[in-house]
Amino acid sequence: MITTASQLKERSLLGLKELSRNEIESILDRAHYWESQPEKLVPVLQSRFAANMFFENSTRTRFSFEMAEKRLGAQVLNFSAAASSVEKGESIYDTVRTLESMGIDAGVIRLKPAGVLQELAEKVSVPLVNAGDGNNEHPTQALLDLYTMRKTFGELKGLRVSIIGDILHSRVARSNLWALQKFGAKVSFCAPDNMQAPDLAAYAPYVPMQEALQADVVMMLRVQLERHAEGMLRSADEYREQYGLTEKRAANLKPGTIIMHPAPVNRNVEIDSAVVESEQSRIFPQMANGVPIRMAVMERAMKL
Amino acid sequence: MITTASQLKERSLLGLKELSRNEIESILDRAHYWESQPEKLVPVLQSRFAANMFFENSTRTRFSFEMAEKRLGAQVLNFSAAASSVEKGESIYDTVRTLESMGIDAGVIRLKPAGVLQELAEKVSVPLVNAGDGNNEHPTQALLDLYTMRKTFGELKGLRVSIIGDILHSRVARSNLWALQKFGAKVSFCAPDNMQAPDLAAYAPYVPMQEALQADVVMMLRVQLERHAEGMLRSADEYREQYGLTEKRAANLKPGTIIMHPAPVNRNVEIDSAVVESEQSRIFPQMANGVPIRMAVMERAMKL
Amino acid sequence: MITTASQLKERSLLGLKELSRNEIESILDRAHYWESQPEKLVPVLQSRFAANMFFENSTRTRFSFEMAEKRLGAQVLNFSAAASSVEKGESIYDTVRTLESMGIDAGVIRLKPAGVLQELAEKVSVPLVNAGDGNNEHPTQALLDLYTMRKTFGELKGLRVSIIGDILHSRVARSNLWALQKFGAKVSFCAPDNMQAPDLAAYAPYVPMQEALQADVVMMLRVQLERHAEGMLRSADEYREQYGLTEKRAANLKPGTIIMHPAPVNRNVEIDSAVVESEQSRIFPQMANGVPIRMAVMERAMKL
Repeated sequence: MITTASQLKERSLLGLKELSRNEIESILDRAHYWESQPEKLVPVLQSRFAANMFFENSTRTRFSFEMAEKRLGAQVLNFSAAASSVEKGESIYDTVRTLESMGIDAGVIRLKPAGVLQELAEKVSVPLVNAGDGNNEHPTQALLDLYTMRKTFGELKGLRVSIIGDILHSRVARSNLWALQKFGAKVSFCAPDNMQAPDLAAYAPYVPMQEALQADVVMMLRVQLERHAEGMLRSADEYREQYGLTEKRAANLKPGTIIMHPAPVNRNVEIDSAVVESEQSRIFPQMANGVPIRMAVMERAMKL
Repeated sequence: MITTASQLKERSLLGLKELSRNEIESILDRAHYWESQPEKLVPVLQSRFAANMFFENSTRTRFSFEMAEKRLGAQVLNFSAAASSVEKGESIYDTVRTLESMGIDAGVIRLKPAGVLQELAEKVSVPLVNAGDGNNEHPTQALLDLYTMRKTFGELKGLRVSIIGDILHSRVARSNLWALQKFGAKVSFCAPDNMQAPDLAAYAPYVPMQEALQADVVMMLRVQLERHAEGMLRSADEYREQYGLTEKRAANLKPGTIIMHPAPVNRNVEIDSAVVESEQSRIFPQMANGVPIRMAVMERAMKL
Repeated sequence: MITTASQLKERSLLGLKELSRNEIESILDRAHYWESQPEKLVPVLQSRFAANMFFENSTRTRFSFEMAEKRLGAQVLNFSAAASSVEKGESIYDTVRTLESMGIDAGVIRLKPAGVLQELAEKVSVPLVNAGDGNNEHPTQALLDLYTMRKTFGELKGLRVSIIGDILHSRVARSNLWALQKFGAKVSFCAPDNMQAPDLAAYAPYVPMQEALQADVVMMLRVQLERHAEGMLRSADEYREQYGLTEKRAANLKPGTIIMHPAPVNRNVEIDSAVVESEQSRIFPQMANGVPIRMAVMERAMKL
């Protein structure tokens, strides 16, 4: 059914850097449509087969995609690398080509190495949806973040968004940066030296913690302690003291500021436990918003 | 759709200790209704989403729930801890809250630590069904056990039920005890010293093996050798000799006595292999009965 | 619904050795029917429950079966041993009996030990489909191989088929041998000494590599290096040099010769990477053909 490379490109979602503001807006609008439907199951994709291919585990993201796919009536096939033949040396490319040969209509892919997804997308002829690739992009996460911000503030233009934490390894930071700038939001970063990303220095300023907390949106990132070389590690306590959204810091935020986090949260490391469920937190609403966003994305990938 | 705490409580199934005899009876009756249906697929829950969250693995129990959910036409999402982000430190609570945010209609949960489920149920607003929590309760197992007994004996009142084995670590023993006593059945335990549960001593007597075998129902428990401290371990052979339902012991049971086991069975440890499939054994029928029981439980949790 | 042993036997697919040429042909024909359907989802098995029981992991094969089952509208329950209670000592037999008790209509089974499946099939009363058992048979793989050959050559009679590689441990080689001989195809093997199967010596000749490459079909097998005793291992390079389908060897094949491989491929060991996607390769079409073949097999197992 997919015939041309351009059609394929219009159905895939590899990242937000290359997506136009209009395209992003139409996904957000369609997510709003899906969120407004009174019926939970609207089987518009009943004869379509989605494969969720998680070469890197993530309960949350896989579940959110599966929920979205099933709400649209699609057939869903899951696999995670841990239970797959990737263990016995089968390459990611061969796995995706295999599932393509078997007739899937779209593939959702999460993987560790950055750059591999772009290569894959050039070689296969089935729409691919990025569910997180290395430290490159995590477009559906950023889309649900924008959707959450738009819901609170009405529009994104002029919004001050601080992204705090491990910018260097964060695909969430990158996808948010690319998308927010298209809408005229003002992104700032805040991170310890060893977590700053040199490649992003030209796009957004690094500011001190005190200044970062003055924003409309305070987006905390998960500290991926496991990703840092032993010698560069700060202890969780030290990290919390300098870069954590503690109860004390949260109490000093402007009343209108919202708190976001892509989750899973390290409670009492980058964010205090009580803050996760505070009134200003949008962390659980973000998860709820992920489902209509992914319905819009999967509908776009697989619609007849 | 779930609005009040009491509605939520009526849909959840955390344990049988707190459930009334009437409530238990209505689940058993509804299971009978489902077992009597000529159609295998009766899609009364077609737009409902069940999440099977197994923080402790169990092929059998997960499969039984999934079968029940799918026979009712529900949408099913599975995860087991081994393939989930719980590995990277995400708490059980955060996982359940996440899936709740994504819009599931009920969560089936199996987990190792006792007591956690009660706490969870107070914090989330979606019905939860206990599929085994530590050594606390395993209500659907006991319901299918009661259902199996009722099928054989017509009623439970006055029935003598011996539960033999590792009472200390057995959620099956506890759930059966609480439920059977509500119906006037007479429960006895039989266990080596290091497998007796002090907290249950007030509710049922410990009797010698010879006496335990005089009952109407002889329920053997799986020996969880892995749960016992090295020094307290009996060898499998020694265990079998003293507490196993050997072919010889089985041959001396009253003709009307039935043999039960929650499975998986350690063949030739707590029960001899030939006894598992003997005429008096209800072990495979128990598994069959689990499906209509879980249909009744999941219908109760998710019905419109 | 299954009442007699002979009905059960007609629905099961344990191997091709015992299947008649007519039966094989009718599966191939039915696969052709399914491949020709314009609709991807044809829900003829909507109230039927298939259990995919993978005691040995295989993304590809499980996915192919699941795709086939779902295209027929069947309900699908999956488990792999890695996430199952088989870990805690539950036997394969008990697991299958459990799922049978729960009411599945057919079981797809993949397992490591050879011979176990035949035993199982005698003990359970639900159709079983072999998805690979030890080094015994892998009937659906051989069926899709025959289907692929028939598509290219029109008929199988007189076709020269060379199977190259680890014949000793290959269930694919065995299933292909049994089936191809029923159709009058000429099978040859080519393998290093330590990978030759003494039990097959009476059925097909071992020929040198040069001769093996003169065939109509060159079927390369995956080298299961992990299956060979340390001392008998050839290095991957040495293997490639002597028995690999290198680019150079592929360039010298007759124009009409097709290249096959059951996958997953060890690129640049038994087959060069460029050859996998060459014009003569049928490796990805084989995967595509697996789906209609498994639709035919699962329909046969579960039809009303």
